[in-house]
Amino acid sequence: MRWNGWGDPAQAAPLPDGVRDLLRDLLGVRPADTPPAALADLGVPAPRLGADVLDALARAAGGAEHVRTDAASRVRHTRGKSTPDLLRIRAGEVADAPDAVVLPGGHDEVLAVLRACAERRVAVVPFGGGTSVTGGLAPYADGSGFSGVVALDLRRLDRLTALDEVARTADLDAGLRAPEAERLLGERGFTLGHFPQSFEWATIGGFAATRGSGQASAGYGRFDEMVVGLTVATPAGPMRLGRAPRSAAGPDLRQLVLGSEGAFGVITSVTVRVRPLPQVRAYEGWRFGSFEQGAAALRALAQDGPLPTVLRLSDETETMVGLARPEDIGAAGGARSGGCLVVTGYEGAAGEAADRRAGARVALRAAGGELLGEEPGAAWAEGRYRAPYLRDALLDAGAFAETLETAGFWPALPRLYEAVRGALTETLTAAGTPPLVMCHISHVYETGASLYFTVVGARGDDPLGAWERAKRAASDAILECGGTITHHHGVGTDHRPWYAREIGPLGVAALRAVKSTLDPAGILNPGVLLPRADE
Amino acid sequence: MRWNGWGDPAQAAPLPDGVRDLLRDLLGVRPADTPPAALADLGVPAPRLGADVLDALARAAGGAEHVRTDAASRVRHTRGKSTPDLLRIRAGEVADAPDAVVLPGGHDEVLAVLRACAERRVAVVPFGGGTSVTGGLAPYADGSGFSGVVALDLRRLDRLTALDEVARTADLDAGLRAPEAERLLGERGFTLGHFPQSFEWATIGGFAATRGSGQASAGYGRFDEMVVGLTVATPAGPMRLGRAPRSAAGPDLRQLVLGSEGAFGVITSVTVRVRPLPQVRAYEGWRFGSFEQGAAALRALAQDGPLPTVLRLSDETETMVGLARPEDIGAAGGARSGGCLVVTGYEGAAGEAADRRAGARVALRAAGGELLGEEPGAAWAEGRYRAPYLRDALLDAGAFAETLETAGFWPALPRLYEAVRGALTETLTAAGTPPLVMCHISHVYETGASLYFTVVGARGDDPLGAWERAKRAASDAILECGGTITHHHGVGTDHRPWYAREIGPLGVAALRAVKSTLDPAGILNPGVLLPRADE
Repeated sequence: MRWNGWGDPAQAAPLPDGVRDLLRDLLGVRPADTPPAALADLGVPAPRLGADVLDALARAAGGAEHVRTDAASRVRHTRGKSTPDLLRIRAGEVADAPDAVVLPGGHDEVLAVLRACAERRVAVVPFGGGTSVTGGLAPYADGSGFSGVVALDLRRLDRLTALDEVARTADLDAGLRAPEAERLLGERGFTLGHFPQSFEWATIGGFAATRGSGQASAGYGRFDEMVVGLTVATPAGPMRLGRAPRSAAGPDLRQLVLGSEGAFGVITSVTVRVRPLPQVRAYEGWRFGSFEQGAAALRALAQDGPLPTVLRLSDETETMVGLARPEDIGAAGGARSGGCLVVTGYEGAAGEAADRRAGARVALRAAGGELLGEEPGAAWAEGRYRAPYLRDALLDAGAFAETLETAGFWPALPRLYEAVRGALTETLTAAGTPPLVMCHISHVYETGASLYFTVVGARGDDPLGAWERAKRAASDAILECGGTITHHHGVGTDHRPWYAREIGPLGVAALRAVKSTLDPAGILNPGVLLPRADE
Repeated sequence: MRWNGWGDPAQAAPLPDGVRDLLRDLLGVRPADTPPAALADLGVPAPRLGADVLDALARAAGGAEHVRTDAASRVRHTRGKSTPDLLRIRAGEVADAPDAVVLPGGHDEVLAVLRACAERRVAVVPFGGGTSVTGGLAPYADGSGFSGVVALDLRRLDRLTALDEVARTADLDAGLRAPEAERLLGERGFTLGHFPQSFEWATIGGFAATRGSGQASAGYGRFDEMVVGLTVATPAGPMRLGRAPRSAAGPDLRQLVLGSEGAFGVITSVTVRVRPLPQVRAYEGWRFGSFEQGAAALRALAQDGPLPTVLRLSDETETMVGLARPEDIGAAGGARSGGCLVVTGYEGAAGEAADRRAGARVALRAAGGELLGEEPGAAWAEGRYRAPYLRDALLDAGAFAETLETAGFWPALPRLYEAVRGALTETLTAAGTPPLVMCHISHVYETGASLYFTVVGARGDDPLGAWERAKRAASDAILECGGTITHHHGVGTDHRPWYAREIGPLGVAALRAVKSTLDPAGILNPGVLLPRADE
């Protein structure tokens, strides 16, 4: 993973000249005049942890080779991959780099690391793929009495330890990256079916900790719906949850760990429901006259079926710009389609997928859709993991690009859509950088759906300040219009104030009580998810 | 509701003579020699609450007419409807009757009642339909410093307050009984689709508090899957949860309240997903050669679809006895069918339901099933709410009848089945009352299913002691074989020790921390769900 951007540097591609022209003409983007800092030039502060602490960590993690204090390792574990994270690290800001990176080799070693850190009041940031876009890897550890911060990197927990073909469950270590999990399952004829945009880098444990949702959620469900069991290492000891698919034995504690973002414990493995590898994968595109008409079509499928495996709708702006197909951005894609693009995908056994496709086609036609054929669907599927690379290219070109998302019940969506677009546009226009705001629906439920916004604009003089204001205005708008502060990105540190408003003081108090029980020293991801007790 | 039995006395029916003969010949059941106690003869202790407390409760609940201390009201709120509950109340044991029954008229009045009780250390038992079969209405309030116990009856919270036809959500008050909820929704063209055996008496709030699951869960989902929002009154104040169908904003707190069994707060209303009234309802029966073969067929439908709306499989004994069709018990039903009966039901839009039925028929035939036609399915649907009445008749006849249930992943089910049957049979045989043990699968998931056991035997000299031993042995077997202590009945007081083993000491500690936060005085259902703090 690029330390100051996304993914595999070999896959990065510069923006086409046409896009540069478009950005300049449409948004006033000027080429960046300062190249990103080089890794060797960063002023990484000296680690604050003494030899005794590092020795204890090495004993806990099974050897000194599993405790790293070199600058490069620490920089690679500094913050996540939000645009503000990238702007800061490109500017060379690494003062909050963790003091050490610890790589335990299994559940028991994770427990031992947590014990060692709790005894010495060292803050611990669980680290999977490092793809958080909500400040989930940037705990608030300053001025709160911690003797240091370690990143607890789970990459050595990387096995498929069990596959039960009768139950159709798999036990996956938390540090397993998604492509490797799919490869291991695929060798046995199964798939997990969780394909978020972070797929190529994110880990199984990260999906669970952040309650993620993938692009095929209509067919395979959200990650929280896939999980039937969890093993968690907490400073207070281990927890194993999930004895049956479902139970009436009290509150579902799995759902208390899912989404806890490393604040209650470190998820070390999950048992997930898996499905047979699909015999067919088919995607296609549809055109609808308006976002409203397209949303009604998605609602009809979500409520009355049949439900495609992938179902997404881009609004007019996103369709025009062609963000759904990054390779075409600024090219003829927009003019070619017009209206609003819907992408549908069907995966499964051949007959069953064909039946669903036939049924969904009838429903989409009845809702006013025009079938564009397989090409737009295939183009979306081909480019589905490219957007983060595109963002790097945009940043290189002097632009600003960021995303945010929410979800709500169907009747709330039109107002949510307008209010968030308005908040982003007004705030960034006032900052002197009028943006392009695009939106899509990519996750549907019987009672509602998600809204995912992409913002592109010029970078301006103070991009971090301008974005902070825009994000705050958008977040306020989300809460005011009845949406949730995040549908699948998580809370992290960025969404904390709105999350507290969303669940109310008693919700915060209940979660804080859980945290105090499982993490009495408060070392786990301080400031992530919940306000610290002394705030 | 009959105070010492089930349901509407007008619907009670004596056992046919043939069944009496069968019980006598097969199980050695002798007619009971002591008739149940009469309500007027019960020695209900004097209420322990003074006039000042009763005045405070009356102020909180909106008037003195909403606080009842008469013996009949208190007896009707004593314990629930498990067989031990019924045996005790039939024997005239009412020493633990609540001191008063309070009937607040809305969410704010519930809050006020909780405040009044917390200030005076009065234990509060939330009471919906009174149908608990796990001791959920029998809190452990003796010797723990409570000045008394009130039953908080939610029957006045009985409205459908909102129906959103776009979101397909309904706001239902917690005290609404299920048939009335269905009637109100049906007038608007919708259904909830939650049909547990307790349907005719249980309430919406009770479904949520106990994390219930209805007989049509394959099609409509479990109750916890229907709930998208909750309003809760706790001694620490109100909570409102659920801003979107799904969210990544932290742990799903709805899933912390669902299943909390009144120990954290009183659910006063829920927002549920509703569906259009089905155009068709069709049931049919199938015969499979063995329970194992039938279970494999159910697994095929659960994993590869299409899934009927109702799907259940009786084992050989249950099929033979015909418990699936109580009107035929002991008659020709058993001999007529043989093997293992599967009941399938299809509800929904006409075309969609027909397609599912056709697809499921193909799968069931492929799995070795023989179609018996609509009659066995219709008979099951007709008799689906009769079993609790049948139990009363069995008790009247001198027999003992009780049920228990679990769930597990598919590979665990054969061992679970044998171990629970063995534990029940051995324990009750050792007690001198060899039982008939029957089982069915009535809830299926991709990764596993439920097992529901029914036990019938002679009552013996010490039925409560014998059942306590049998239930303990069965519960131990469930935990040893990897099952959950309850799939849909809940924890109550009866399952508490096994629940604690199931979630482990950290799970218990986390939930106790939540309870301490929301119910600092510990007045809510003390001893239900969790051990008390001083245990």
